[in-house]
Amino acid sequence: MRIMILGADGYLGWPTAVDLAFKDHELMLVDNYVKRNIMTSLNREPLVKSPRLVAKANKLNKSGCKVKTANIDCCNFDKLTLLFKKFKPDAIIHFAELPSAPYSMMGNKEAWKTLENNLHTTLNLIWCVKNINKNCHIIKLGTMGEYGTPNIDIEEGWIDVKHNKRHQKFLYPRQASSLYHTSKIMDTDLLWFYARTNGIRVTDLMQGPVYGILDNKFIDDNNLQTSFAYDDMFGTVLNRFIVQAIAKTPLLVYGSGNQIRGYINIKDTLNCINLTLNNKPKQGSLNIYNQFTEQFSVNELAKKVKKALTKININATIKKIKNPRVESEKHYYNAKNYNMIKLGLKPTLLNDDVIIAIAKHVIKYKKNINKSILKPKTKWT
Amino acid sequence: MRIMILGADGYLGWPTAVDLAFKDHELMLVDNYVKRNIMTSLNREPLVKSPRLVAKANKLNKSGCKVKTANIDCCNFDKLTLLFKKFKPDAIIHFAELPSAPYSMMGNKEAWKTLENNLHTTLNLIWCVKNINKNCHIIKLGTMGEYGTPNIDIEEGWIDVKHNKRHQKFLYPRQASSLYHTSKIMDTDLLWFYARTNGIRVTDLMQGPVYGILDNKFIDDNNLQTSFAYDDMFGTVLNRFIVQAIAKTPLLVYGSGNQIRGYINIKDTLNCINLTLNNKPKQGSLNIYNQFTEQFSVNELAKKVKKALTKININATIKKIKNPRVESEKHYYNAKNYNMIKLGLKPTLLNDDVIIAIAKHVIKYKKNINKSILKPKTKWT
Repeated sequence: MRIMILGADGYLGWPTAVDLAFKDHELMLVDNYVKRNIMTSLNREPLVKSPRLVAKANKLNKSGCKVKTANIDCCNFDKLTLLFKKFKPDAIIHFAELPSAPYSMMGNKEAWKTLENNLHTTLNLIWCVKNINKNCHIIKLGTMGEYGTPNIDIEEGWIDVKHNKRHQKFLYPRQASSLYHTSKIMDTDLLWFYARTNGIRVTDLMQGPVYGILDNKFIDDNNLQTSFAYDDMFGTVLNRFIVQAIAKTPLLVYGSGNQIRGYINIKDTLNCINLTLNNKPKQGSLNIYNQFTEQFSVNELAKKVKKALTKININATIKKIKNPRVESEKHYYNAKNYNMIKLGLKPTLLNDDVIIAIAKHVIKYKKNINKSILKPKTKWT
Repeated sequence: MRIMILGADGYLGWPTAVDLAFKDHELMLVDNYVKRNIMTSLNREPLVKSPRLVAKANKLNKSGCKVKTANIDCCNFDKLTLLFKKFKPDAIIHFAELPSAPYSMMGNKEAWKTLENNLHTTLNLIWCVKNINKNCHIIKLGTMGEYGTPNIDIEEGWIDVKHNKRHQKFLYPRQASSLYHTSKIMDTDLLWFYARTNGIRVTDLMQGPVYGILDNKFIDDNNLQTSFAYDDMFGTVLNRFIVQAIAKTPLLVYGSGNQIRGYINIKDTLNCINLTLNNKPKQGSLNIYNQFTEQFSVNELAKKVKKALTKININATIKKIKNPRVESEKHYYNAKNYNMIKLGLKPTLLNDDVIIAIAKHVIKYKKNINKSILKPKTKWT
């Protein structure tokens, strides 16, 4: 398959590229390094610095892969159009979004940067597909955070609403707890609008917070680690906890810690993407899959990390701090995740071994940890 | 009250300004003429050209009103912030959006222009209020078009969804039939996000297509008509029909003509705004009112126009053409509009006299009608 990956430099983009490259797909990796640049401007770095895409792609191609790269801003419609016409993708995987809730809540400029980047990129991608090849499958990374924490079960994307003896199927009503997550709700609205109006084919992967690293021989041998962020803005919670433990600082739980979310191992993310590639939606359809494998409260996560790490003689402490976010701290949470299982996903569950494997990876790069970026700096109010 | 009106040059903005100015409010009228400029670039003009805001405000001030103006782009946060700090509004009425469904469907550039203008303006306005004075009441013009044509009753903004023996109140799920209307869904999402997170006070007026002109002595005597558009892009349907009849061209009905919408007379729009100004939401609340007075199908509207105009010896013809839009042409439609009535609105119903009054206004400026802009140019697919 010819696959274009937008945001191929990122935490998920790069492992996806490696995985698909070795499965004999022809790839076009696109990134303009906006996330790297923002992280640098905020004095934040991932645990391991990695080369840019050209260098990484060269390594892949030396191993027999067929990978091209393009450093373009997907907000530039003309450039994206040219690339699309030249490469002729069968599928586009869209990771090219600013992914940070705290960044989106910093100030007006950061709020607009998040909306502008995420919506303009998505709009341009849609227009390329709609103008040039409607059969191209758009695979969009959404987020479970779009749903928020409703008092009813979270279905997979759609809900049939019964009202005054009539009923209507709607996109599941979504109400997120950050501007970033709100931008992803808007993305889904855009994709669904053009799917039903112009007949494009879209899969929206409503992904929970991802954790872990890909243990992959090619990546390890070539020292081409993915961008593992552990800071307050770009690091996801389980990765942050493990780094905090190894840095001998407390695992910082925001508020009561009773916030429940659905989590997923990065290995399962890649499996989900492969399953999605093999299941193209019908013309004019938006397929939505909830992409997580297990639900935990933040307290449970912290305790799991603490318990697992004692096995490698790390004694983590857990500290509750005032929640910098505005979010429900006690709420019902029951999200469905049947679709991916039906497609064939075999979940990688979060056990001590998984946590220890991530911890061992972090320990390898322990000297890179910057303790000054572990505490939350952005307040929602 | 100190009231800032964003988009004060437009079809609704200017009559609102005149109405509120004579009710002794202190006004700051803001516009950057982006709609005028877009119309000009597309060779479209309103029925009557009107002076810019400075000249119009001078006339108002000579009549004893207290009106200031500012030519700024509300997408410029720093400029909007300065203006907000200087003027200190108690309420902001937000009309500053690109309002055309066909324009938003023309191409990628127009789609992005619509999203960018509408979302950035709304975001900046929210941030001014949130940073400077959270008590300032944001009155946002939404649209009934956000709801689309669901198979269940359309409630006023919110719905209680019962599901698996639990229930949750959500924003009513919205699914629009143009990118412009989708941008307004996103506006509502933005306003609700910041209301519940940061405690701002918002009223969202879900308005149906507006028709008519304000018959106001000040406007008539000074020849300061509102921007009455009648073209395929910026004219609303009833206004378009009346102009088509007077231009001796057929009333163009798109598709079957069974599309039902809720309509409102511009006089009632002004009454609704006055009622809203006197009903500030609680902190952190988003009040949503469906702002229309009567439901009609497009066929019914066309027939009403035809029938009324025979009384002044105009014999209109009705012509069905292929629908350039993608929309349901046969659908359930039952929208609630109790809230405004509860606040005290006395609806102006659409009868022959109302249609004839608009027609007489159009006849006065008949020589300005450009017949080449009466047929729809933009197709949805």
